Amino acid sequence: MGDEESKKWVLMVTAQAPTNMSVIKYWGKRDETLILPINDSISVTFDLQHLSTITTVSVSPTFLHDRLWLNGKEFSLSGDKYQRCLKEIRSCAGDVEDEKKGIKITKKDWENLHLHIASYNNFPTAAGLASSASGFACLVFALAKLMNLKEDNGKLSAIARQGSGSACRSLYGGFVKWFMGKNDDGSDSFAVQLADEKHWDDLLIVIPVVSSRQKETSSTRGMRESVETSTLIQYRAKEVVPKRIVEMEEAIKNRDFQSFARLTCAESNQFHAVCLDTSPPLFYMNDTSHRIITCVENWNHSEGSPQVAYTCDAGPNVVLFAQNRKVAALLLQRLFFHFPPHPDTDLKSYVLGDTSILQDVGIQDMKDVEALSPPPETKDDIAQKYKGDVSYFICTRPGKGPVLLSDEGQALLNPETGLP
Amino acid sequence: MGDEESKKWVLMVTAQAPTNMSVIKYWGKRDETLILPINDSISVTFDLQHLSTITTVSVSPTFLHDRLWLNGKEFSLSGDKYQRCLKEIRSCAGDVEDEKKGIKITKKDWENLHLHIASYNNFPTAAGLASSASGFACLVFALAKLMNLKEDNGKLSAIARQGSGSACRSLYGGFVKWFMGKNDDGSDSFAVQLADEKHWDDLLIVIPVVSSRQKETSSTRGMRESVETSTLIQYRAKEVVPKRIVEMEEAIKNRDFQSFARLTCAESNQFHAVCLDTSPPLFYMNDTSHRIITCVENWNHSEGSPQVAYTCDAGPNVVLFAQNRKVAALLLQRLFFHFPPHPDTDLKSYVLGDTSILQDVGIQDMKDVEALSPPPETKDDIAQKYKGDVSYFICTRPGKGPVLLSDEGQALLNPETGLP
Repeated sequence: MGDEESKKWVLMVTAQAPTNMSVIKYWGKRDETLILPINDSISVTFDLQHLSTITTVSVSPTFLHDRLWLNGKEFSLSGDKYQRCLKEIRSCAGDVEDEKKGIKITKKDWENLHLHIASYNNFPTAAGLASSASGFACLVFALAKLMNLKEDNGKLSAIARQGSGSACRSLYGGFVKWFMGKNDDGSDSFAVQLADEKHWDDLLIVIPVVSSRQKETSSTRGMRESVETSTLIQYRAKEVVPKRIVEMEEAIKNRDFQSFARLTCAESNQFHAVCLDTSPPLFYMNDTSHRIITCVENWNHSEGSPQVAYTCDAGPNVVLFAQNRKVAALLLQRLFFHFPPHPDTDLKSYVLGDTSILQDVGIQDMKDVEALSPPPETKDDIAQKYKGDVSYFICTRPGKGPVLLSDEGQALLNPETGLP
Repeated sequence: MGDEESKKWVLMVTAQAPTNMSVIKYWGKRDETLILPINDSISVTFDLQHLSTITTVSVSPTFLHDRLWLNGKEFSLSGDKYQRCLKEIRSCAGDVEDEKKGIKITKKDWENLHLHIASYNNFPTAAGLASSASGFACLVFALAKLMNLKEDNGKLSAIARQGSGSACRSLYGGFVKWFMGKNDDGSDSFAVQLADEKHWDDLLIVIPVVSSRQKETSSTRGMRESVETSTLIQYRAKEVVPKRIVEMEEAIKNRDFQSFARLTCAESNQFHAVCLDTSPPLFYMNDTSHRIITCVENWNHSEGSPQVAYTCDAGPNVVLFAQNRKVAALLLQRLFFHFPPHPDTDLKSYVLGDTSILQDVGIQDMKDVEALSPPPETKDDIAQKYKGDVSYFICTRPGKGPVLLSDEGQALLNPETGLP
């Protein structure tokens, strides 16, 4: 840096990274510090437009400390997970030169330079949709660009993994596999892309966001308690998951929705089974989650083959995969019937994301929602309505991996001051 | 019978049998017809006064068919389970002679004589508290007396087992073990008493009966689906349960409440885990069940050792075992606080069974329920009230096995006509 040290430059990069949803579940670590899992997992990456994190990272000789703002509020970076990611990234940093701005940073300068980081989720945090996955993926991806890392996405995924396990899968679009690895140092525990988002592009995703007053056990703590107390988790990790990984890779490769749905639902259910087998038991699903799943199971059963797959993580929300657009429309008709909004909710706050599907459902305003008839497979005793139990719906699809945002207007930090 | 055949006599016996609650769970059959389980189970028998079935069985040469009345309504006896029990019992029947009434029935006459059976549960069927266990136990016990069977309780339990698996455990009071057995004909699958009800007489039982609108999958169908689809159930049956059986027998023998509670809760949770691991998943617990369990877990945790054990079968009700009377009173204070009744409920319909405990709780009328303060271990965010989510409470204790009721006034059939 030398002569440039006196200059007041700020260098910055903005990136956007998607969140993802596992279809073969990650639950349980073999190493708490390095975040090494007890089994492989597979996920689907969500469209950046609807469920993603935008992060601006910046560096300047004027910064006195590493600082972090999440959704506009400052947070401490002193936590182990942040420290571990930052240390790993700094150790891989390369030389950076910007002649126009007169900036020259060498590999070893990064140890002494401080970072400002600002991050923003484009979906409500209350939705409980793994914002830590997109968050850490975006942080690592943006810093890798800023610091001119030469490492490939696999290595970046292994760094993101140390922030939040599932973050490693958000370094890729489409369908992603996270290898548990065998090495003690975690060097072989990283993610790879199985297929990109175009490989299976008729899949649609619907997420009924469930209202909940309950405070759930964090997944970090929950999975530690499961490993310590469940007498089923190791059998699941060693005997059940490896077979399902092979079958799921095959299902994705062949766009075989029946197998995909069977495995996805079985995995979700077994994950929650292990949660229940924990002491004290982890209740992540609530009555609304149960009702959504029962609605899907009944419909799948009445059709004779799976139309929709469901999966649910460490919270009450259920993520639904519809085989195609037609099925997604029929699914929404069912869900809108059973879970109408509170009065005075407008359509725009009831359905978020890709709302073009509403045309296929035949919904133009809230009156159309109220006028829906019960699904034909519904027996009288279960044609019940649970008003307000779903706060809103998010409609999305599989999407691509992290991208750089070159438009400075999208940056979350001021290019002069490096502050939000 | 010979000369007596023209006479219009009616011979009858009335018995009362308790229901029971498993603490090591029975879930899954290795033989559907003979009802042979995939693992041993252990249960606690409930006090006859509060949760039992009364059954009157009668025989008369004037009866044209076998007939059955349950809670006053006639039902068909043509189901496999009834037929199997009746056939087994008839094959063991002995000679009966009543000189006063001029009755003489020989062993082989029983094949041609018809039975009238009337049965009544002294607890609401809606409570979902395994009325089939007390029902079949009472039927078999009463018929064994009527037909002068020489078989011991073990053999009777094996007959009752063929009506409803858990019924075999209701042939004894106190603490009961059902051996899964190994033989294909089921001859070694019967129940034995581990300890009678006096062995551990400070245990109290509280059952919050949970309001539910959901229709649950029957346990017969549910356990079949679990055996067919769960990838965890066999591991549980073969690797987990056998160790817990040994530990539970030891805990009961030593009146070791800590071990009893730890095992009982772990078993309940693992049973529901296997239910979730079934396709389609079996949701027996609802939000209210979860809240009751969370309340108990929080309290146990705050005390540093288990005060109360919980267990839940194929329905939303949770059965709670309190270590002693003092603990039971503190438990009720907590439950009454979180689950107050709907307005205008009187204390008599809010608390059933042994209501003497209310004195210990300091409750004389509904105003005292309303005035309860939040439990000290409750954090602000969970000091919530769920009005009406528990319909009523049943307070009881471990009790004795089936008894004969010699008072004719308690018979459910008319001694002249053999009709209800």
